[in-house]
Amino acid sequence: MLLRPVGWVESPLVDPASAPKQGDEGAPEASVVLEAEFAEALDGVGEGDELILLTWLDRARRDVLRVHPRGDESRPEQGVFATRSPHRPNPIGLHRVEVVSIDGAKLVVRNLEAVDGTPVVDVKPVLSADAAER
Amino acid sequence: MLLRPVGWVESPLVDPASAPKQGDEGAPEASVVLEAEFAEALDGVGEGDELILLTWLDRARRDVLRVHPRGDESRPEQGVFATRSPHRPNPIGLHRVEVVSIDGAKLVVRNLEAVDGTPVVDVKPVLSADAAER
Repeated sequence: MLLRPVGWVESPLVDPASAPKQGDEGAPEASVVLEAEFAEALDGVGEGDELILLTWLDRARRDVLRVHPRGDESRPEQGVFATRSPHRPNPIGLHRVEVVSIDGAKLVVRNLEAVDGTPVVDVKPVLSADAAER
Repeated sequence: MLLRPVGWVESPLVDPASAPKQGDEGAPEASVVLEAEFAEALDGVGEGDELILLTWLDRARRDVLRVHPRGDESRPEQGVFATRSPHRPNPIGLHRVEVVSIDGAKLVVRNLEAVDGTPVVDVKPVLSADAAER
């Protein structure tokens, strides 16, 4: 179960501690730059689409099972699977973003809180609630 | 970027070819059985909660970049990043499920279309649309 990066985040965000906790909490516009060999896998993705990006949170800890939600020590500790903490046994980030523009293997997106240099491991469309439209 | 299973799917579904394409398209009740060492990470997850499970689709192909959406050859091929095909460079499955019950390290869930024996790599809560409730 070995992941390989399919691309990388380019973002003005560089410090995980000061980045927004979620993409809809004030993240700046950012880019996803895919490795050239994977550009073909974007065929069918268009401007305005909503996507789910999966990233590898390479600065996270993997040995943490309990955290204060959102790092707020006034809240009681919970298991990491009840939170979106980056610290978890497999530190995969899940980000719902909107495509602003596409140029070859580069996607400009809204609502991405991952920091600059974060490896991207998968890109998926957000599914329509109507199965007939999938 | 090495994933380790945190648990496994137990399901009456055994054949990927005949399993529903998405969990809300007729999946039977199924279970997620976590390794005992990770049970603590579930603290705070409750019955009725909506979760996102990430799985490792161990029977998928990793060398496929274009597919007919939903395996329907009447539809033109698209890039795998525009589809939810299991075949993709990093075959991570994303499943939105509802918790029916919890017993220790075992979660019974609705709307899981992954087949029996699929490794589970992460469990995340579905976020409230209201950031103040996260």
